[in-house]
Amino acid sequence: MQNPPSLEHLIESLRCLPGVGPKSAQRMAYYLLQRDRDGASELHQALGQALSVVDHCSRCNTFSEQAICPICSQADRDSGTLCVVEMPTDLMMIENTHTYDGLYFVLMGKLSPLDGVGAKEIHLDRLIKRTNDGEVKEVILATNYTVEGEATAHYIHEMLNARGIKTTRIARGMPMGGEIEYVDTGTLAQALMERKGL
Amino acid sequence: MQNPPSLEHLIESLRCLPGVGPKSAQRMAYYLLQRDRDGASELHQALGQALSVVDHCSRCNTFSEQAICPICSQADRDSGTLCVVEMPTDLMMIENTHTYDGLYFVLMGKLSPLDGVGAKEIHLDRLIKRTNDGEVKEVILATNYTVEGEATAHYIHEMLNARGIKTTRIARGMPMGGEIEYVDTGTLAQALMERKGL
Repeated sequence: MQNPPSLEHLIESLRCLPGVGPKSAQRMAYYLLQRDRDGASELHQALGQALSVVDHCSRCNTFSEQAICPICSQADRDSGTLCVVEMPTDLMMIENTHTYDGLYFVLMGKLSPLDGVGAKEIHLDRLIKRTNDGEVKEVILATNYTVEGEATAHYIHEMLNARGIKTTRIARGMPMGGEIEYVDTGTLAQALMERKGL
Repeated sequence: MQNPPSLEHLIESLRCLPGVGPKSAQRMAYYLLQRDRDGASELHQALGQALSVVDHCSRCNTFSEQAICPICSQADRDSGTLCVVEMPTDLMMIENTHTYDGLYFVLMGKLSPLDGVGAKEIHLDRLIKRTNDGEVKEVILATNYTVEGEATAHYIHEMLNARGIKTTRIARGMPMGGEIEYVDTGTLAQALMERKGL
């Protein structure tokens, strides 16, 4: 005894979503067909639309509906500085600080050999090509301070250094409003080591 | 700074899935567009297909591509017994025991006033209509032994009793292979109370 074939197919297809196993996929499919057909139609339409119009910006590699995304199209940006981030969300976070007027390159991932993500998968060849335009003077590495993010930053640093391009890394230290009593020891150790004159 | 509109729309639409919040929806959308466009196309196709062909069996209310589902179409089933379950998965579990040859009625939910699910939402009017065919002699209540499942069974019992239809409830007690030392006290108490002569 099984679900009807098209329902089984939907359940199977939902498993392509990250973090969705067989039980969740079945729950989702039942929910969509039973309680939220409007939502399901909307999702169907949105998925088709996104698949057909969303691609990557040819300069910074972020998701974009245009060949060159709105940020890369801004003429008043400092084209000498390129900030490398893992994901479009990171780009948006940095934009929201309103303190950076350079350009970006979005890796769309991080080096993660265990998951089969190597230099090729995160478009490092495109990053090299991008930094070869003669305008980029400094590459700011703004990958996460996780093990993979650090490894990615290190790898890019080595790669660009060999090509004579200056790289910097975003600072580590105490967060704004952070109290020494509650901060983790790793952060505190780093904040001590990288202390600055007043 | 935001994602492109069609990507935002996809993220918003993914939130109709149960248990998916804004962060997961964004992660899913990024994943679909970045790492698994084939899976996304497949999902798009499967969703459209399921929405257009999957409906409910007009007799037992389970998901079906035909007006009357394969089980309700089987001529050699005992049409005097009707087993009421919450979801199609429960029906499949019972079918897999190979010990039941009656028919089913799938509520597609359970009474849950806090979530706004009342008698109307779980098609109890259709259940009444179904049991009025003059053939049904016994309705087996096989809802879960959860608070909502119990309440649903009780409600249906009262409703059908008033119409002179016999209802039974699946037994409670020790599970197969269960050890008294490890079973929960509620189950053990029930197993004691419902003890049977050998």
